[in-house]
Amino acid sequence: MRIMGIDPGIAIVGFGLIDKQGSKLVPVQYGCIQTEAHTDGAVRLKMVYDSMVQLIDKYKPDAVAIEKLFFNRNVTTAMAVSQARGVLILAAVQQGLEIGEYTPLQVKQAVVGYGKAEKKQVQEMVKLFLHLSAVPKPDDVADALAIAICHAHSQVLLQKFKEVRKP
Amino acid sequence: MRIMGIDPGIAIVGFGLIDKQGSKLVPVQYGCIQTEAHTDGAVRLKMVYDSMVQLIDKYKPDAVAIEKLFFNRNVTTAMAVSQARGVLILAAVQQGLEIGEYTPLQVKQAVVGYGKAEKKQVQEMVKLFLHLSAVPKPDDVADALAIAICHAHSQVLLQKFKEVRKP
Repeated sequence: MRIMGIDPGIAIVGFGLIDKQGSKLVPVQYGCIQTEAHTDGAVRLKMVYDSMVQLIDKYKPDAVAIEKLFFNRNVTTAMAVSQARGVLILAAVQQGLEIGEYTPLQVKQAVVGYGKAEKKQVQEMVKLFLHLSAVPKPDDVADALAIAICHAHSQVLLQKFKEVRKP
Repeated sequence: MRIMGIDPGIAIVGFGLIDKQGSKLVPVQYGCIQTEAHTDGAVRLKMVYDSMVQLIDKYKPDAVAIEKLFFNRNVTTAMAVSQARGVLILAAVQQGLEIGEYTPLQVKQAVVGYGKAEKKQVQEMVKLFLHLSAVPKPDDVADALAIAICHAHSQVLLQKFKEVRKP
């Protein structure tokens, strides 16, 4: 199963593709979509959408896992990121992909085993899980991979739950 | 010039199409896109996007005017509406349409001439400007028409400004 993790944004969207081969997680590709601040807002949304469509077309993930936003301060930023999140989800649902949404807390719990883990701990676990030689940069990329790992772990739990319930 | 006003939302998106014929404003079509609360969030975004694409294709507006969100209370609602706003703007920019964004204050100033006007006053002015026999319902539809009128008035001001600046 191929999972695409997404850390949504308007200036920078982190993405991370991993293959779940049994209990093994193999990194496929990761990086980010970037748009320039001086560009018109509507055009930036189109750039994010077009790049997402291209990535899905190229890497053909089975599922997209995307961070659920949690904001309590800057509403303007929350709204700009939500608009981008909307077009990212649209690109995934148009291809009929499974979509998983996770809060930062859920991602930390799944990757580090502790909901209040620090960013650095999450990044180190991403490196470890995927046997990478270094933590991917910028942070948005490592975050996207963490979200993909979180989805993979949720799938494992779902599977175990189904097995336990078998008669 | 045909203008499509949009009052963004996820459960209900108001739309209002008007033709600006010289100084006259003529209503073309208005109504709303609705999605059911029990439907999956990603699917609702796709429904909003698909309906918007169909409306643009059918009525061929030259410009889309959309309300700028202003939230200071419910951030969760702000984020859900912003996601829908993102896919609505995407549909417009994909067709190369002019996009105008206006705050509720700007809309009230343009339609009633007073930024702190009440909703009812705005609705009465919409009815008057467009020679309608009644205020369109629900409120989202009247709001969408008000945004379209706001865009039409902004165009008039821009035109006057250009004329004044002619050597």
